[in-house]
Amino acid sequence: RKRLHTIVNHKAFQATVIILIIANAILVGIETYDSIYENYSFFFYLADRFLLWLFTIEIVLRFFSTSVRSFFKNGWNWFDTIIILAGHLFTGGHFVTVLRVLRVLRVLRAISVIPSLRRLVDALVMTIPSLGNILFLMGIFLYIFAVIGTMLFSGIAPEYFGNLQRTILTLFQIVTLDSWSSGIMRPLMAYNQWIWIYFVSFVLVGTFIIFNLFIGVIVNNVEK
Amino acid sequence: RKRLHTIVNHKAFQATVIILIIANAILVGIETYDSIYENYSFFFYLADRFLLWLFTIEIVLRFFSTSVRSFFKNGWNWFDTIIILAGHLFTGGHFVTVLRVLRVLRVLRAISVIPSLRRLVDALVMTIPSLGNILFLMGIFLYIFAVIGTMLFSGIAPEYFGNLQRTILTLFQIVTLDSWSSGIMRPLMAYNQWIWIYFVSFVLVGTFIIFNLFIGVIVNNVEK
Amino acid sequence: RKRLHTIVNHKAFQATVIILIIANAILVGIETYDSIYENYSFFFYLADRFLLWLFTIEIVLRFFSTSVRSFFKNGWNWFDTIIILAGHLFTGGHFVTVLRVLRVLRVLRAISVIPSLRRLVDALVMTIPSLGNILFLMGIFLYIFAVIGTMLFSGIAPEYFGNLQRTILTLFQIVTLDSWSSGIMRPLMAYNQWIWIYFVSFVLVGTFIIFNLFIGVIVNNVEK
Amino acid sequence: RKRLHTIVNHKAFQATVIILIIANAILVGIETYDSIYENYSFFFYLADRFLLWLFTIEIVLRFFSTSVRSFFKNGWNWFDTIIILAGHLFTGGHFVTVLRVLRVLRVLRAISVIPSLRRLVDALVMTIPSLGNILFLMGIFLYIFAVIGTMLFSGIAPEYFGNLQRTILTLFQIVTLDSWSSGIMRPLMAYNQWIWIYFVSFVLVGTFIIFNLFIGVIVNNVEK
Ligand code: NA
Ligand code: NA
Repeated sequence: RKRLHTIVNHKAFQATVIILIIANAILVGIETYDSIYENYSFFFYLADRFLLWLFTIEIVLRFFSTSVRSFFKNGWNWFDTIIILAGHLFTGGHFVTVLRVLRVLRVLRAISVIPSLRRLVDALVMTIPSLGNILFLMGIFLYIFAVIGTMLFSGIAPEYFGNLQRTILTLFQIVTLDSWSSGIMRPLMAYNQWIWIYFVSFVLVGTFIIFNLFIGVIVNNVEK
Repeated sequence: RKRLHTIVNHKAFQATVIILIIANAILVGIETYDSIYENYSFFFYLADRFLLWLFTIEIVLRFFSTSVRSFFKNGWNWFDTIIILAGHLFTGGHFVTVLRVLRVLRVLRAISVIPSLRRLVDALVMTIPSLGNILFLMGIFLYIFAVIGTMLFSGIAPEYFGNLQRTILTLFQIVTLDSWSSGIMRPLMAYNQWIWIYFVSFVLVGTFIIFNLFIGVIVNNVEK
Repeated sequence: RKRLHTIVNHKAFQATVIILIIANAILVGIETYDSIYENYSFFFYLADRFLLWLFTIEIVLRFFSTSVRSFFKNGWNWFDTIIILAGHLFTGGHFVTVLRVLRVLRVLRAISVIPSLRRLVDALVMTIPSLGNILFLMGIFLYIFAVIGTMLFSGIAPEYFGNLQRTILTLFQIVTLDSWSSGIMRPLMAYNQWIWIYFVSFVLVGTFIIFNLFIGVIVNNVEK
Repeated sequence: RKRLHTIVNHKAFQATVIILIIANAILVGIETYDSIYENYSFFFYLADRFLLWLFTIEIVLRFFSTSVRSFFKNGWNWFDTIIILAGHLFTGGHFVTVLRVLRVLRVLRAISVIPSLRRLVDALVMTIPSLGNILFLMGIFLYIFAVIGTMLFSGIAPEYFGNLQRTILTLFQIVTLDSWSSGIMRPLMAYNQWIWIYFVSFVLVGTFIIFNLFIGVIVNNVEK
């Protein structure tokens, strides 16, 4: 095991894996060009299988280089294992799209392999729990506005407020300020001139909460 | 009173109230699906009445668990009492929409019941007074631009600048930068090519003030 | 002079002026409703003349309450004097719009009269010189992109890039991200597919500079 | 060489160069007005050649005022030399547009000549390497979303997702929030109602990364 550990953490090993990930990235990129893909589809199939097995060997080596517990304690190992395992499971004509998406997602393994990127993503993800309360608050307001919006507008604007899911999507669009007034509010105001109260209050509440989320993160970071 | 106080602040009591609020939230969510609502409308009616009375009992218990003064000193108690009282008052066919909105707003009680959320909202609301001056300044500029805008453009673009209220709504849209140029300014420039002065100066003044509002809050927070 | 100084700085005097400004604000607001304005236009005319003379008296009192030098050292006195003087000068049918705008701008006097607002605006304005360099840099890039844009696109999109002024307006719209791609870049890409280079580089440079402007102000403020 | 060094760093020399740059800026500005340009095109040609030779002399003086090594160690000297050299190389009818763009870019020399601007740009550019990791992360996500987007939508929305380059441009538009929903996502949802997953996750990931980039720069600056 110790020898395996030395191999797995050797620079040459890591460089090889990175090169394989880059090869995988280039491959999925080229495949988006239909004319090339159709002419060499068998080559692409072979290259993909070959890469998948190399990645599988890599994971297996990693697995045996450490104890089972410490392997599964690391979230990145879970991620790598699932991505690769799924590549073996979803074969066959039925899952063509799923399989192709999975092969693209393997590029994400660059994060787990390059230490500085892994640390960065760990740091980014770790800021999320400290925002738990404010995200929860945002969730409550989103839900309340979604229920009220569906209740009031499902009849007059079904494409935006037809059901709860659709309204939540519309509210997400509104909070990004994309055509919230020109595309959504103004056409609805033809039905009732007081409709602006709903939209303006959501824009104010939504941007105010996001704004405080922003400030919370800045202040947290500066304190550290 | 002391025993009541112990009951009201017991974890089981608070957990029950939270469960009731979640039940209320799920109920109003399901009601937005017309097909379900129409088939079980009587059940929804009963469930709502039942929840309303449970919430009423909760508020009454809270009321008697402390002195009248300290009960009404807490803004959240006012909020809870009004939301529940209004539920009892607005019954009858005339106020269907008002009543339904009120029932959705009861979900907001989650904030008053969960201490960490209550503290968060208290903190957010307390940042507003320190922004009083800058909000007042924004109000002055908004009013001046609204009066000038209505004066100059009410004839040529009544849907945007027809009267003072409508112009204020349009200015709010402009400050969120939604289609301010593509949808509002450019069509108006067909009438007079100098119209951009009004719009560009409002965008500059508006975003400059919001930007300083933002900075004010950050600096305030960092100082603490 | 000393007695005048006491009068001018007396709370009652300042309160009166604020009330006059509010009256002026309400007046110009009501005038935007054509139906009311047309029925009572003579009353509005009288009220306006009356207010103008009261403001004139106020400025004259202020002028004699202090030395000429210290009066004109204060930028706000210049502002007040010009606003009121212009009200006397632009009378007569030719300048109706100018006069009406001037009367609305008198509401801005609220800033010069209320000390806390005056200090706030002084503080906001004083942040501008420290941004001199970055604003100058932004100006250079704006000019370069404007000249190149007019050069390349004046033929194919005259409404956006017809001449230097129009291109600068379009670039201002682009930096606010309003329909920069959906409304301006994409239609142009029908002519030449490399046109995106111009737009994407301007969006990157423009938002990068604004973003640094933002950070500059925050860091300046935190340092204080 | 020492005498040259004194000349080159003399205030009068620098002022002259700044005046030449301003003259160059005005010239390229006026040329955008076709009616003026066509009438005086020979004058503009002469003025441009004259300025180009003056700039050439300036660079040559700068070159001989210091050692070769220290001249090319300074990135700004490279920039100035290339801009001027290119002006000599791209003459002749074939490169009219390239040449005109180059003449506009000479205005950028204002940055290399004015020390305070040069320091500012140096400071701005130096913040970029510290953002290397987060920009790399953004690049990985951009590439993954671009490949998946092209794979899934190239058939149904070729104008947005036709090939990898076009998809990257579309994703850039989406991250600036310009019509991401109203113009791109909603029309596509007519084909498949789950398409929002792709867009919402990209908006969330994209803005989250940009937001952290922003915070990273602020925190870096405050620490200094
Ligand atoms: Na937009
Ligand atoms: Na926008």
